[in-house]
Amino acid sequence: MTNTKKSIGFVGLGNMGGGMARNLAQAGYSVRVFDLMPEAVQALVDSPAGANITAASSAAEAASSVDVFISMLPAGRHVDGLYLGQGDSPGVLDAMAPNTLIIDSSTIDAATAQKVAAAAEQKNLLMLDAPVSGGTAGADGGTLTFIVGGADAALAQARECLEVMGSNIFHAGPSGSGQIAKVCNNMLLAVHMAGTAEALALGVKNGLDAGVLSDIMKQSSGGNWSLNVYNPYPGVMEGSPASREYAGGFLVDLMTKDLGLAIACAEQSASSIPLGSLAKQLYSMHRDANDAGRLDFSSVQMLFDPSVKS
Amino acid sequence: MTNTKKSIGFVGLGNMGGGMARNLAQAGYSVRVFDLMPEAVQALVDSPAGANITAASSAAEAASSVDVFISMLPAGRHVDGLYLGQGDSPGVLDAMAPNTLIIDSSTIDAATAQKVAAAAEQKNLLMLDAPVSGGTAGADGGTLTFIVGGADAALAQARECLEVMGSNIFHAGPSGSGQIAKVCNNMLLAVHMAGTAEALALGVKNGLDAGVLSDIMKQSSGGNWSLNVYNPYPGVMEGSPASREYAGGFLVDLMTKDLGLAIACAEQSASSIPLGSLAKQLYSMHRDANDAGRLDFSSVQMLFDPSVKS
Amino acid sequence: MTNTKKSIGFVGLGNMGGGMARNLAQAGYSVRVFDLMPEAVQALVDSPAGANITAASSAAEAASSVDVFISMLPAGRHVDGLYLGQGDSPGVLDAMAPNTLIIDSSTIDAATAQKVAAAAEQKNLLMLDAPVSGGTAGADGGTLTFIVGGADAALAQARECLEVMGSNIFHAGPSGSGQIAKVCNNMLLAVHMAGTAEALALGVKNGLDAGVLSDIMKQSSGGNWSLNVYNPYPGVMEGSPASREYAGGFLVDLMTKDLGLAIACAEQSASSIPLGSLAKQLYSMHRDANDAGRLDFSSVQMLFDPSVKS
Amino acid sequence: MTNTKKSIGFVGLGNMGGGMARNLAQAGYSVRVFDLMPEAVQALVDSPAGANITAASSAAEAASSVDVFISMLPAGRHVDGLYLGQGDSPGVLDAMAPNTLIIDSSTIDAATAQKVAAAAEQKNLLMLDAPVSGGTAGADGGTLTFIVGGADAALAQARECLEVMGSNIFHAGPSGSGQIAKVCNNMLLAVHMAGTAEALALGVKNGLDAGVLSDIMKQSSGGNWSLNVYNPYPGVMEGSPASREYAGGFLVDLMTKDLGLAIACAEQSASSIPLGSLAKQLYSMHRDANDAGRLDFSSVQMLFDPSVKS
Repeated sequence: MTNTKKSIGFVGLGNMGGGMARNLAQAGYSVRVFDLMPEAVQALVDSPAGANITAASSAAEAASSVDVFISMLPAGRHVDGLYLGQGDSPGVLDAMAPNTLIIDSSTIDAATAQKVAAAAEQKNLLMLDAPVSGGTAGADGGTLTFIVGGADAALAQARECLEVMGSNIFHAGPSGSGQIAKVCNNMLLAVHMAGTAEALALGVKNGLDAGVLSDIMKQSSGGNWSLNVYNPYPGVMEGSPASREYAGGFLVDLMTKDLGLAIACAEQSASSIPLGSLAKQLYSMHRDANDAGRLDFSSVQMLFDPSVKS
Repeated sequence: MTNTKKSIGFVGLGNMGGGMARNLAQAGYSVRVFDLMPEAVQALVDSPAGANITAASSAAEAASSVDVFISMLPAGRHVDGLYLGQGDSPGVLDAMAPNTLIIDSSTIDAATAQKVAAAAEQKNLLMLDAPVSGGTAGADGGTLTFIVGGADAALAQARECLEVMGSNIFHAGPSGSGQIAKVCNNMLLAVHMAGTAEALALGVKNGLDAGVLSDIMKQSSGGNWSLNVYNPYPGVMEGSPASREYAGGFLVDLMTKDLGLAIACAEQSASSIPLGSLAKQLYSMHRDANDAGRLDFSSVQMLFDPSVKS
Repeated sequence: MTNTKKSIGFVGLGNMGGGMARNLAQAGYSVRVFDLMPEAVQALVDSPAGANITAASSAAEAASSVDVFISMLPAGRHVDGLYLGQGDSPGVLDAMAPNTLIIDSSTIDAATAQKVAAAAEQKNLLMLDAPVSGGTAGADGGTLTFIVGGADAALAQARECLEVMGSNIFHAGPSGSGQIAKVCNNMLLAVHMAGTAEALALGVKNGLDAGVLSDIMKQSSGGNWSLNVYNPYPGVMEGSPASREYAGGFLVDLMTKDLGLAIACAEQSASSIPLGSLAKQLYSMHRDANDAGRLDFSSVQMLFDPSVKS
Repeated sequence: MTNTKKSIGFVGLGNMGGGMARNLAQAGYSVRVFDLMPEAVQALVDSPAGANITAASSAAEAASSVDVFISMLPAGRHVDGLYLGQGDSPGVLDAMAPNTLIIDSSTIDAATAQKVAAAAEQKNLLMLDAPVSGGTAGADGGTLTFIVGGADAALAQARECLEVMGSNIFHAGPSGSGQIAKVCNNMLLAVHMAGTAEALALGVKNGLDAGVLSDIMKQSSGGNWSLNVYNPYPGVMEGSPASREYAGGFLVDLMTKDLGLAIACAEQSASSIPLGSLAKQLYSMHRDANDAGRLDFSSVQMLFDPSVKS
């Protein structure tokens, strides 16, 4: 039987990228992978899905002669360097075959996303920015949410692959829109999580039960995602990070990074984001006061109710 | 046929109280009403439900010889004055028959609620603080939400009446808890509404469509009540105040008042509410910059996107 | 030799009031004193200035048959109770001789100050609100600053006494203005102190020396009272609270109280004070995170630079 | 007579740089100048100091064979491009003679300042970052304040030139420190200016006279540079921007830019700057609500007191 599935190049095999590449291989795609950490490559090759995985010796090799090229990197400067080159090493755009479809799933600033997409377009390559939410659990389970920026035609081609890695796919608009929409969403998340933590602490300090108050607000106009699925008060919601000492989940350091992207996005568009800016500072003060960078972001509860401990 | 329903005294027949008293009368209760504005009393007597309504000549008369006494007043000082007296005029607690059940549905500071409830208890009278949400539409339609503080036994007695006036009844805890829970909820509402407005303006300024971005965030971790049922961006949600130039709805002046109660509640409990405090200031600046006191509170969108007009 | 100096009644002999009354007695005034704590009265009687001090058995006795009556109490409700009465005990306004001059040096809300002054005026008594700054050192040394609200004529009569207790006397305007001006000043102080602490921490985290940076900003447009006389960074200014582990000085609890008065003042005048509100929250979070209520208010430095310890 | 003064290259002849270069020429230095706008070059050549000014045909020409090279550019990317090259055009570091002393007086991010200084050091060239304050009046009159980062030896060499252009020279520390200290200072300035405006509006709304309140706070613990020399309330201080409808002075757009640098500086050092962040947002909202980008930065008064107009 011949494999009629598309061939995929994948660069960036960290906590997120590793699971995404594995899911593609398990779904029958042949995946050529590269990472600066050889162990990350080897782990994939040795995995049960290893039969469909080939180790590339460079990013350029992973990018050449594939139908789809996917990247999952930490920050804008890495994405810029990978696609456009850095110092003496050329960018992977130069190594790609015509018609290669590009998907960058990194969470980066919109300006870099737009710059790289424009460079790809110059070479007649379609590119999508497709940042994800859902964390490592979503990456492992193939249940990520993709928020996509780019042309309709590119998304149509990408959909099959994206559906292997995720369960929700949103099209936000043209190039860069995926990054912008994610940044807007995560800023709003930071605001309502910290706002929820404030409201719960205010209730508890005035004698209310955090669970009872949560129930009331959840069914009233205070309702929001934090209350529904991620209650920040210890003991209210079984299985939430708050009920396991804020271990795991979405780290304060990552939320702080995303709020930095929101502020950069506001800066370049002359937007006012007073609550988003204050949320950034609250997370920063919480990180410093409670050594909380590696705790789940709902641990901001500690800032408002010092009796809550990690 | 004899009317076996309880007799009710009702003081405070404004936009909210008028509808509530009418609904009780329509449900067959005999209601003795009083208001400082004779027109408000007359309007009820002349209404279709007028057969069950009697005009009292004073608050004390409305409070004497009834099974249940309900008040709906603007602020804590009015509630204090009504129940405990002011200057030479005695409070209605002195006029009540033993076993009268008291329900104060005003939205006031918890400290006053607790003080009046304690005075009632001294006289062996059961009292509930039961502030509402749902606005004049809820008061007219009998679909208010009651957030109740007080003893279980008192709520059990009150439930029948409350269900005539409302469709949701939450028990927050002992005396004062209704006020505290409402204040927590409305502070969180102010925060996620203003946060939603910020996020939408940020997206729009960066080229996204407000409706598309709203859809994405609603289904993602940014989801909240403002996005679900009260989208603040004009044109996104048919029938929302934003789509009728922010007319009607929940006024900026009322949200500012509720945020003042939240701050007072935080002050007396030594709580930190940085986002709630900033939301208060944003509403205050919005009111002044855009003459917005009488607009719906979702008009805070104007503060972040000056192209949005009322 | 006859004492031709005015007779003075003085109520409220705490850390501040005790020193003020003593200075008046030492200057030759005969002072009739009262406090709810008998020890505070006795300490004054036993002091070197005791010859000019008489213990009164009640506030009313201290207020009757004196030329000037001075009060120094913790909060508005105490001032209200003292002058206007509370429960069954009448206010001291009823006990005063005609033409008694009243000086309230408590730091309280302007609304209470105006209410009490209006009641005094009804009885043809002149009253000044005259809150102070300068702390216990200023009270002991007679170097307080008085910020005075009330009529010119009243201030002219009071000046001789005030100059015994203080070295600066400002006339802010009519009744209540002393409280308002003090609240404005202290709000601005809180903002520039916390702002100075932020700026110093930002510089230090980026490798600058706190002393060098302080010198530069002091001589530049960043200059302010905190930098000039009360540097919040440890080791920069000899003798400042920061250089003795934030002991003594103006307590975080008192600054938090004053910011509460500023917020109440803004509330009743529909003013927007976003920085003042945030400063209040920063002091509140600092108090909770660092158990800092009894530290000097410049210890807010700890919130921005966790390496700084009390 | 031979000119024994140093020869100077100067790039960037805008509102600030033009005056600085002219002052150097008038003091007898021979100055080789370049700007992308030929008119700016011609204006200098045609000025009374023109005898000592030579037009260079490129930045590289202005940089070669001079003793001192000075740049005054709008933002970090321009400085990066000028010194290190951009695209195909090499940086001026390559064009410089050994021992050329470099002074960059642009206000830019510290990271770029440090990167360029490190590149200069690689070529054995001494470089100072020396941002200024004092505005165009200071540039014209030779009364600027320089805040300098770099080695002692470099500053010693530069001092003679700097004293021609300015009247205050501060040494903040090693490379980049000038930028950091300026950013700290201007953030603190933004905070106390907006805080002063808040306090004045609060007083005025409560019946105080802005001038009287200013006098009191200036002499009390609220004292700061804004009150002393730049009062933001119209009519209080003759000659201040507030008294000429906020024309001229230090523009809101420039303060917003400097606050952006402060936030970037905080971001890269993981610093918390809640008041600085809020000040940034207040300036941003003021700019949008009042179309205030080209007004003096003290016009933030309008945000707190809508009766104040530009």
